[in-house]
Amino acid sequence: MAFITLTTDFGRKDHFVSAVKGAIYTLLPETVVVDISHEISPFNINETAYILKNAYKSFPKGTIHIVGVDSELTPENKHIALLLDGHYFVCPDNGIMSMIASEINPSKIVEINIHDRVETHFSALDVFVNVACHIARGGTLDVIGKPLPEITKMVELQPQVVSETKIIGSVIYIDNYGNVISNITKELFHQVGKGRSFTLSSGRNTFKKIVDNYSDIVNFELPISKRNDAGNRLALFNSNDYLEIAIYKSNLQTVGGASSLLGLDYRSCISVEFDKTLTD
Amino acid sequence: MAFITLTTDFGRKDHFVSAVKGAIYTLLPETVVVDISHEISPFNINETAYILKNAYKSFPKGTIHIVGVDSELTPENKHIALLLDGHYFVCPDNGIMSMIASEINPSKIVEINIHDRVETHFSALDVFVNVACHIARGGTLDVIGKPLPEITKMVELQPQVVSETKIIGSVIYIDNYGNVISNITKELFHQVGKGRSFTLSSGRNTFKKIVDNYSDIVNFELPISKRNDAGNRLALFNSNDYLEIAIYKSNLQTVGGASSLLGLDYRSCISVEFDKTLTD
Amino acid sequence: MAFITLTTDFGRKDHFVSAVKGAIYTLLPETVVVDISHEISPFNINETAYILKNAYKSFPKGTIHIVGVDSELTPENKHIALLLDGHYFVCPDNGIMSMIASEINPSKIVEINIHDRVETHFSALDVFVNVACHIARGGTLDVIGKPLPEITKMVELQPQVVSETKIIGSVIYIDNYGNVISNITKELFHQVGKGRSFTLSSGRNTFKKIVDNYSDIVNFELPISKRNDAGNRLALFNSNDYLEIAIYKSNLQTVGGASSLLGLDYRSCISVEFDKTLTD
Repeated sequence: MAFITLTTDFGRKDHFVSAVKGAIYTLLPETVVVDISHEISPFNINETAYILKNAYKSFPKGTIHIVGVDSELTPENKHIALLLDGHYFVCPDNGIMSMIASEINPSKIVEINIHDRVETHFSALDVFVNVACHIARGGTLDVIGKPLPEITKMVELQPQVVSETKIIGSVIYIDNYGNVISNITKELFHQVGKGRSFTLSSGRNTFKKIVDNYSDIVNFELPISKRNDAGNRLALFNSNDYLEIAIYKSNLQTVGGASSLLGLDYRSCISVEFDKTLTD
Repeated sequence: MAFITLTTDFGRKDHFVSAVKGAIYTLLPETVVVDISHEISPFNINETAYILKNAYKSFPKGTIHIVGVDSELTPENKHIALLLDGHYFVCPDNGIMSMIASEINPSKIVEINIHDRVETHFSALDVFVNVACHIARGGTLDVIGKPLPEITKMVELQPQVVSETKIIGSVIYIDNYGNVISNITKELFHQVGKGRSFTLSSGRNTFKKIVDNYSDIVNFELPISKRNDAGNRLALFNSNDYLEIAIYKSNLQTVGGASSLLGLDYRSCISVEFDKTLTD
Repeated sequence: MAFITLTTDFGRKDHFVSAVKGAIYTLLPETVVVDISHEISPFNINETAYILKNAYKSFPKGTIHIVGVDSELTPENKHIALLLDGHYFVCPDNGIMSMIASEINPSKIVEINIHDRVETHFSALDVFVNVACHIARGGTLDVIGKPLPEITKMVELQPQVVSETKIIGSVIYIDNYGNVISNITKELFHQVGKGRSFTLSSGRNTFKKIVDNYSDIVNFELPISKRNDAGNRLALFNSNDYLEIAIYKSNLQTVGGASSLLGLDYRSCISVEFDKTLTD
């Protein structure tokens, strides 16, 4: 049983997504096709990398991930297929994969060269569909492409450790609740901080504490009528171990979320200043 | 073949939903995972209960329904699994299930107690995924939780029968067309009304008739050019037997629907006044 | 293995779509149910026809397509099932199918007549679900309906060839990127133009060239820093061979797309004027 996922900026109203699915089912009726996201902001490869990086690992090894974001074939935007961390990716070589491969090296990369052998009649993604189904049938990458020594590098926003006491990071994603996710990982935080007290700052907002669960800011000893935690700000390490600034139980569509209420946007600066002494 | 459904407020852009699906497929590749809704307003348990109540019954008996709305584990928000009406539910004990169980009692309820046995590395829902797959494999509820005598009660907005001639209800949901759904059921209406004439009122809108199909307000004997039924108000019992106020062929995105055009919102009052005499 | 697709204006928040899926799985657990679109503008049969026409062909022959747009049964809106191009369609007879059948004639049409035999308890679409599952099990159309000589004709917006040198078309769809799709096909264009030079006009916008790929307007010989192609207008024949006016790498949610930036909307006029001489 083969799993193929789709990550695109096609939206869900147009026929594009279902045309891709229909093509897969026509070639391989037994495939399970799973949507990762089709609401990527058009042509936004940073968003694509963030979402795909956090989603792919949950799938079974051997899953084939098709990426349809900024995927038109041009002299500068090759089509590639690669094996990384036991998963296959079929995608444009526009830098997305370099962000996903920042921690793990691909064990095999090919430049897809079957474009003249594929009838393109249903979508820009017909080549990707053919390659994915080839892999799903157990075919090797060598048959559909020629080895590529490396992929296009795209420098992701990286947190900077500017001194022994300071990390400067930035906002890399804003989620469905308006929560603001930075590129500072729990690992980097502990590596630099070594357990010291700290001040986390972003714009005019400062935090002295980073929690592990949203509800850690609730005082459960107070009667419910005396609590007013909904709407409170908090900093936490989220389920993917990124430092996140959130509003407890926020609703982006009504009162707003951390992004709108705290004035934080994509690329906004988030910094952590640790105390000079290790124990204070 | 096991069916697992998902009802969340995660939205469809972020990686959360697909991470949950990937985790299910990794544990049980043969499962069919079906989305009920991921567009629940953040943390809105009333919406969750309304949507889930109207959706779950269509699924095969034995289906496992995961609810990911306001599901963070806290001292006050336990994780539960229960069997009700032949369906399994894996969800937080925050009142959602009491609204679904208002008509049918659960035949078994457990408080999930496997949190220390599950590696949580992909999402807040990993415990729910593990429990759902355990049930899907034929496992019993006793293995993953301890019996719970009852679930948290959440008093839903209930219609009030204030006299032999009057029902006061309220708006509990606004659908994709902007149609406004009340908590007055067809059954209650007939039970109190006993066939008498009535006036249905909401704000400045009154209705003397409740239809069974939207198109019942169209006069098909008129030539099409003489009709102007699109945009007309109507009251009907919808496919789930709730009293609904609608605009015929409304479009919320352009001209508006019953909610915006008639000024009706969640919790707005809808009342029915029956005539004093049974036959008039 | 049967494939059933769904095309509706139900949206994805409400319980409607999942109730339909649950009903299908209850009747036929082995079915693969695929969403074509649920974001059709309410009651918009032009959009439905455009999306379905471009999606259905990618699916395996024998796929059953359910259409839930403006599908309430009325004296004027019958329910039909038909076989066309090797695909089954179960839908209202409101003109949608006449637009899809404009190029290919249905080989069989029936008016569904099992309404009194189906318990309708979950959705307006229960009859369609029953018919689709009947077909999926290998049942014939004659069992669930009576032969219908023809379907309701709905005149689609058609391009007009007003002289040997002029085609007048109109906008029939605006996609997720804000790109504007006309009803002028590549085939008609070449048939009338016979290779002559031309001026394509829409509002104040004129084009002298129609490309085949979005990136054909990029000059790859310039260094990237000297290019400013993102945001440029272009005319192209899209993957479905319709003449389309686009903005290169547009984002409808931020800077806008061709529709908003060039002032083109559904039904806007797009015309092509060819030179008088065949070779100039």
